[in-house]
Amino acid sequence: MVYDYYAGGANDEILLRASRTAWDDIQVRYRVLRDVSDRSLSVQVAGHALDWPVIVAPMAFQQMATPEGEVATARATCASGCGMILSTLSNRTIEAVRAATTGLLWFQLYIYRDRGITADLVRRAERAGCTGLVLTVDTPILGRRERDLLNGFHVPAEFEAPNLGVNMRDALASRHSAASALATFIANHWDAGIAWRDLAWLQSITTLPIYVKGVVRGDDARLALEHGARGVIVSNHGGRQLDTAVPTARALPEVADAMAGRGTLLVDGGIRRGTDVLKALAMGAHAVLLGRPLLWGLAVEGETGARRVLGLLRDEIDLAFALAGVRAPAEATRDLLA
Amino acid sequence: MVYDYYAGGANDEILLRASRTAWDDIQVRYRVLRDVSDRSLSVQVAGHALDWPVIVAPMAFQQMATPEGEVATARATCASGCGMILSTLSNRTIEAVRAATTGLLWFQLYIYRDRGITADLVRRAERAGCTGLVLTVDTPILGRRERDLLNGFHVPAEFEAPNLGVNMRDALASRHSAASALATFIANHWDAGIAWRDLAWLQSITTLPIYVKGVVRGDDARLALEHGARGVIVSNHGGRQLDTAVPTARALPEVADAMAGRGTLLVDGGIRRGTDVLKALAMGAHAVLLGRPLLWGLAVEGETGARRVLGLLRDEIDLAFALAGVRAPAEATRDLLA
Amino acid sequence: MVYDYYAGGANDEILLRASRTAWDDIQVRYRVLRDVSDRSLSVQVAGHALDWPVIVAPMAFQQMATPEGEVATARATCASGCGMILSTLSNRTIEAVRAATTGLLWFQLYIYRDRGITADLVRRAERAGCTGLVLTVDTPILGRRERDLLNGFHVPAEFEAPNLGVNMRDALASRHSAASALATFIANHWDAGIAWRDLAWLQSITTLPIYVKGVVRGDDARLALEHGARGVIVSNHGGRQLDTAVPTARALPEVADAMAGRGTLLVDGGIRRGTDVLKALAMGAHAVLLGRPLLWGLAVEGETGARRVLGLLRDEIDLAFALAGVRAPAEATRDLLA
Amino acid sequence: MVYDYYAGGANDEILLRASRTAWDDIQVRYRVLRDVSDRSLSVQVAGHALDWPVIVAPMAFQQMATPEGEVATARATCASGCGMILSTLSNRTIEAVRAATTGLLWFQLYIYRDRGITADLVRRAERAGCTGLVLTVDTPILGRRERDLLNGFHVPAEFEAPNLGVNMRDALASRHSAASALATFIANHWDAGIAWRDLAWLQSITTLPIYVKGVVRGDDARLALEHGARGVIVSNHGGRQLDTAVPTARALPEVADAMAGRGTLLVDGGIRRGTDVLKALAMGAHAVLLGRPLLWGLAVEGETGARRVLGLLRDEIDLAFALAGVRAPAEATRDLLA
Repeated sequence: MVYDYYAGGANDEILLRASRTAWDDIQVRYRVLRDVSDRSLSVQVAGHALDWPVIVAPMAFQQMATPEGEVATARATCASGCGMILSTLSNRTIEAVRAATTGLLWFQLYIYRDRGITADLVRRAERAGCTGLVLTVDTPILGRRERDLLNGFHVPAEFEAPNLGVNMRDALASRHSAASALATFIANHWDAGIAWRDLAWLQSITTLPIYVKGVVRGDDARLALEHGARGVIVSNHGGRQLDTAVPTARALPEVADAMAGRGTLLVDGGIRRGTDVLKALAMGAHAVLLGRPLLWGLAVEGETGARRVLGLLRDEIDLAFALAGVRAPAEATRDLLA
Repeated sequence: MVYDYYAGGANDEILLRASRTAWDDIQVRYRVLRDVSDRSLSVQVAGHALDWPVIVAPMAFQQMATPEGEVATARATCASGCGMILSTLSNRTIEAVRAATTGLLWFQLYIYRDRGITADLVRRAERAGCTGLVLTVDTPILGRRERDLLNGFHVPAEFEAPNLGVNMRDALASRHSAASALATFIANHWDAGIAWRDLAWLQSITTLPIYVKGVVRGDDARLALEHGARGVIVSNHGGRQLDTAVPTARALPEVADAMAGRGTLLVDGGIRRGTDVLKALAMGAHAVLLGRPLLWGLAVEGETGARRVLGLLRDEIDLAFALAGVRAPAEATRDLLA
Repeated sequence: MVYDYYAGGANDEILLRASRTAWDDIQVRYRVLRDVSDRSLSVQVAGHALDWPVIVAPMAFQQMATPEGEVATARATCASGCGMILSTLSNRTIEAVRAATTGLLWFQLYIYRDRGITADLVRRAERAGCTGLVLTVDTPILGRRERDLLNGFHVPAEFEAPNLGVNMRDALASRHSAASALATFIANHWDAGIAWRDLAWLQSITTLPIYVKGVVRGDDARLALEHGARGVIVSNHGGRQLDTAVPTARALPEVADAMAGRGTLLVDGGIRRGTDVLKALAMGAHAVLLGRPLLWGLAVEGETGARRVLGLLRDEIDLAFALAGVRAPAEATRDLLA
Repeated sequence: MVYDYYAGGANDEILLRASRTAWDDIQVRYRVLRDVSDRSLSVQVAGHALDWPVIVAPMAFQQMATPEGEVATARATCASGCGMILSTLSNRTIEAVRAATTGLLWFQLYIYRDRGITADLVRRAERAGCTGLVLTVDTPILGRRERDLLNGFHVPAEFEAPNLGVNMRDALASRHSAASALATFIANHWDAGIAWRDLAWLQSITTLPIYVKGVVRGDDARLALEHGARGVIVSNHGGRQLDTAVPTARALPEVADAMAGRGTLLVDGGIRRGTDVLKALAMGAHAVLLGRPLLWGLAVEGETGARRVLGLLRDEIDLAFALAGVRAPAEATRDLLA
């Protein structure tokens, strides 16, 4: 049940598969004899120095993977020199996670019908020392995830959801219709009516920069910037929301062109290999978000497993840079892509 | 035998498969932050208000799926707020089906060599209160359906075909060469020679609007309008007539362009998911026809099963709207498609 | 061994497979309401009236399929109203085959190093009453057919090859290295050096029209006409010569454009369904050559089986015409193809 | 373990597979009636007359395939009339290999951090009578070959690596972490910092012509010529370095255009059939490099097996020429490719 929740996608999982193959299908026109003895993967993302251009994506309920939950993830990212986005649907408190890493930590949130809940979460994130807010915009309602429907997915009863703003433990842990419990919670509490004006409102109640996650169109990226966002995350929620949506590897160039260098540009969706990261950078992303592989690492060996996964990816990115004749992220340009 | 008759297509079933993949292969550039809290799926189709943009396609011999046959379908569509087209090759009378729904009900027919039979059927449809006629034009003769040939397909002897205009029960129920019996009936009774002039003739004997079903070309759509049709249904008969014909998802944009907003534009063929309907609307269709899934619902649980299938699709369309940032059919525009 | 000889292709059989899929991948934009009650499949091919646009391709050693060999084929084509091309590598004499059909019968030949043998064969074909010569130009040497190499393909010892011009029975029937025996025979006797000038020579020694078989390029088709050929057969020898050559369905439009209506244009390669024939005509072919399916018919039931295969295809072509809104070959135009 | 080392590629082996299919997918527009009785496969490559346009690629550790190692390969190439490139990572000395063939023999090398080692190797190659140097530029560090990681790949302890310039036998033969031992050796000894200036340096210390191997871009090919290279080998190291790099069959035309006839142009990567060689020549290559098939021949039957493999390929190229209407490499032009 947990594996399917993590691994699955919406409906026929066409997008879930396409998210991978879209990266695979892009071919690299690598360069040679570029003196790649000194390579740097470090990037500046919204004022943060990252040792390498990866941020762990917001993923729900990480205690289902390892007892320490999101705290293990935070420790792994801190040790690995990359960033982390904490999900609203986490099992550990913002404060505990913040205490576990000195690195980039952003808080991901939704806008509640009761704006007061959102405002409270924003204040908690600010007080805890998160340095950015990630507003997920591809989930006005929950996608249809058929594995979860078949499995009667539910969050094990012993886990908490301390950053939800409301007490959802009982509902989420219901054995009988948990998937719909989650969907019902979202329908009841989150606001399907959020619009660009709400982005402006959110910006008005915080000094934290806001990043809009879930954009796949150039015009939406421009709207995000116009409404105060400091950046955009090209994402389709890991293929879990609208099946047959455009894969992010296909959407990214259009969004990068629309951004034209203004604001921070990130991307997720199917990134598994170092070459995927190289390609994302070449298309214009400043860094990428890594999702499911982190969970597999957590599930196998907790924080250690997560560090191992991050280390493997970092090594692969470094290798991809070397073999492509790229010494630093700034040298990853579009001519690398066939 | 019945499953193969329902599920199968012509010859190598290349078109049958392509009809599905053509929709799957179209990617959605969804919009975000569009305030989708108030969504409406309702459409006006030829003056009828439908709660959502689906009409059940004309499908033959529905008693093979459930004892109540087309009456069960009619009740399900009525309860679900969508429309229905009754096939000439139905097992229940027009009158019984009409009595079972207050919703949109059109009668599908062919033109007989004996024009008097067609005229009688038109009058029956008028008197019964059908509000439209659907002229199927992709079946001058019956396609080659190899599953039916192998199975010796026949209609079980206890079923009637009361809207055929001629007594075909014995022939259709023949156990020995039923497939060819159907083909022979069609060859003997239906007019392979129908032409655009016959559309004008048909229009001359009725006040009902006529929709031409089976068009896959822009020039044919224009001809249909010029000869009096009130609309066009882009269809290839569910892949059951000419194998390797163009899939409807590929033909629809050309037809929509040729129609240029004149008349009603519908489409069928491989539509299974809510996103398929969203894509069809984005290409210019006013609504879609749903075929085989209805039969699976009927076969599992009669009217209840049909309602369940319709409910699932309606929910999926609503979900697709919400996730694509579309509040109403009018907002489904071509820029949604990659 | 015989099945593999008939069914196989060159090297990796990439072209053998592509020959089929190239037809399958072409989609038909069928027309409706065109009054297809009176359909005619008849064509004029080089002055011959054929009831339908099919000629049986030259295929070697048909006694391996049925005891009567090419005589059975001739009878089947005569009964079915289509044409036949007799292979040089046949088991029955030209005269016996000619006696078996009143229909179109052309003789296929190669040019021997010893031009006298070719001249003798031409005279035999003329005297027997063949009405055309087909010069195969894609076989300067034999293709690499790995099935035959593995099987040690040989012609059973009891069969003759009476139209070869030389006594090859012993060599072809060798059990130990028959494939190479065939290749060696070809290398020794046929002229790998044939060139356009030889086409002119061949035309100079006969009054029969010559058709050049094995062309896949527009410039070669023009050269054929300039050197006296009366027509061209777009063919790659059924995928048995140069693997990964261009499929005929892809080459045909270019050749048709180059011919620009001058001379006879035929095509073979992977044609199995009535829709394939419709597509070939729409691209500009006057008729198609049918190969392997005829052999399967012969193998199952001799002349009767061959007639059954021809009847099935004829019915399918007729059906494809009806369903595409095409009343006669002249109406099969390129706008039918997507 | 050895098979996987030879057969495998980097990461997901996407490029390994694409290297083959890229050739397969190119279709040949063959010519007919071109008098192909006298065919020649001979080419001039950098002043060497080769009987046919193939050079055996530099491949490491050939003693793992056959006891005689690279000496067997040299004898086979000599007997077959083609060329050979000896790998730095060979098990037999340059001198022994040179003594085994009178044909084209080039020495492949890397640039060491300690330039003196490279200079020594260059002098050894010169003194031994090699007539060209091949500088591999796609391996600043070793690619990630997961088969080798899983197998703990190591070179059997009894083999030497006499052309490495340093004593690496112990490290390469380590059973416990040999793959990383190879990677560590490369990281320690070879210079990941090599750049175009080093090509100029290398040229300054030798009179031998230098060929740059591993180029996939037109601009890099031009840079190679500008820095003194006499030619370019389009290669991605057999798919063993950067996975999802552009296949050579796709990169070759761009490189050929950039070279514009200046210098020698070779290509490797997935070449298995005679038609692949024909296609490479048609794109502008002067000859191709053959890799893995040679190893299979060595493994089966040593020098004899290698000769058999070379003979099969030569026969296939000759056949492809004949069937494509090509009498000599100069007639292989781009119009042959669809």
